[in-house]
Amino acid sequence: MNLDPQQLAALCAILRCGTFDAAAADLGLTQSAISQRLKALETRVGAQLVHRGQPSTGTAAGLRLAAHGDQIALLEAQLARQITGFTPAPRTRLRLAVNADSLATWLPAALAELPDHLFDLVIDDQDAAHDRLTRGEVLGALTTRANPLPGCDVLALGSLRYIATASPGFMAHHFPDGVTASALVRAPMLRFDAKDRLQEQWIARHLGRTVSPPCHMFPSSEGFVAAARLGLGWGLNPEPLVADALASGALVPLLPDAALDTPLYWQSSRVLGAALTPLTRALRRAARQMLYPPA
Amino acid sequence: MNLDPQQLAALCAILRCGTFDAAAADLGLTQSAISQRLKALETRVGAQLVHRGQPSTGTAAGLRLAAHGDQIALLEAQLARQITGFTPAPRTRLRLAVNADSLATWLPAALAELPDHLFDLVIDDQDAAHDRLTRGEVLGALTTRANPLPGCDVLALGSLRYIATASPGFMAHHFPDGVTASALVRAPMLRFDAKDRLQEQWIARHLGRTVSPPCHMFPSSEGFVAAARLGLGWGLNPEPLVADALASGALVPLLPDAALDTPLYWQSSRVLGAALTPLTRALRRAARQMLYPPA
Repeated sequence: MNLDPQQLAALCAILRCGTFDAAAADLGLTQSAISQRLKALETRVGAQLVHRGQPSTGTAAGLRLAAHGDQIALLEAQLARQITGFTPAPRTRLRLAVNADSLATWLPAALAELPDHLFDLVIDDQDAAHDRLTRGEVLGALTTRANPLPGCDVLALGSLRYIATASPGFMAHHFPDGVTASALVRAPMLRFDAKDRLQEQWIARHLGRTVSPPCHMFPSSEGFVAAARLGLGWGLNPEPLVADALASGALVPLLPDAALDTPLYWQSSRVLGAALTPLTRALRRAARQMLYPPA
Repeated sequence: MNLDPQQLAALCAILRCGTFDAAAADLGLTQSAISQRLKALETRVGAQLVHRGQPSTGTAAGLRLAAHGDQIALLEAQLARQITGFTPAPRTRLRLAVNADSLATWLPAALAELPDHLFDLVIDDQDAAHDRLTRGEVLGALTTRANPLPGCDVLALGSLRYIATASPGFMAHHFPDGVTASALVRAPMLRFDAKDRLQEQWIARHLGRTVSPPCHMFPSSEGFVAAARLGLGWGLNPEPLVADALASGALVPLLPDAALDTPLYWQSSRVLGAALTPLTRALRRAARQMLYPPA
């Protein structure tokens, strides 16, 4: 027997709205009807699905089932494109794992091409995004991994270009004799978080050796740019985010012609293939405008 | 017996650099010296401190001890201001829990006033930030909570002003007859993440009732603004982030004179009180320029 769509809808509403109250209002039901549907679903699958709290959040099984509900809605939306008499739910919900720099640059324009969808974006580091996709908690993920994950199709989108930048004052103070290894060891560097190795990668490529500079951690694409402009440190910034600052001279490149291109791939659930086509097309179109073509 | 500073330094370097290799390079030691110091420290405190991996990350005890190392460095920096013959480590590391909208607006300017510090920022929702501060994993936190957390001093910084905005096209399409409850039920709303209740708070204040609109989740301050500009939804944006777009007409307010002011407080470890004074002063100065005065 398939899962009850009304029970799934109750679960999705609780996780989306965060409280049983709001979920009830959202679905035009009483709070006790919501509770009963959730309990019935938990009995059916034999697992707790929601951590009751303020707000209520999904257990691993709950997140997986909610994603299943979204996937069915997506498949029904595809059905409606083929069977004219069938009207699906008004809006399809797409849960995607994305990287912060894509969200800060080219991604919103792609999503805006699909006005009849609701996007539920999660920012994760790469490994966490792969885990979510493999577990089925998201329908697709933007990643630097070219090999398809199990059960996924993969599309090369192109490369996001990064420029190592700093403020003119920072350059004068920390690199008066150029970007040497001995200067890099002392000049504060920006890092997105503990897993960010982009700056080290750039150093290794352009100096031919590894260096561990003192570092700030700024876990925000635009906070990163602001920190560079204010002279807190140097760091690799996506070209679209710093084009204006480079043109005005508020930021300068550490070295000429030393861009680092990071390839991006769209990994998405194969079973949903055709149903995801509108999204895949929109991603490809926006990527073509903002990223450098795949090699 | 106090903890061995060299062992603490090894732990901090591993967590900062992510690998034993990089930590060794950072401290000018061999990798085996780093391993031995970490093992000695783990034996001393009787707990595993690091999850060995790529990258290596801290256990709860490891993060707590690393914060302790940073706190000692901070206290020594204060000592050096009072005992002229004593030279502390070159740069003090400050680990702070901050909210995304502060990092996207007024916070970087405050931090840039302290060039001899390294900042390790973590973005957390409020409850997680309180937990980190209470556990001692961060020295201070930006929060909307006015009551001091246990062991903390609290300073009212002022309020960040939010404006409910949307694109002109979105307004024409979704609110042709004004921002009514029946239109809000259908118009897609932006939400930062599942815990973000700011939009609902604004609706309740201006409509006098609760409404659960269909929602996108865009977990990025600037992605949120981009989504509003592109017509994906409406949402509450910090005034400094949308001032230009409002002036140019790329965004319009949903209602006139309907700003929502969110008070911000700086909660910081009381035991470090005086040692944190330079940071507290810088926060207060930047807040005075970018936030609305505390009530």
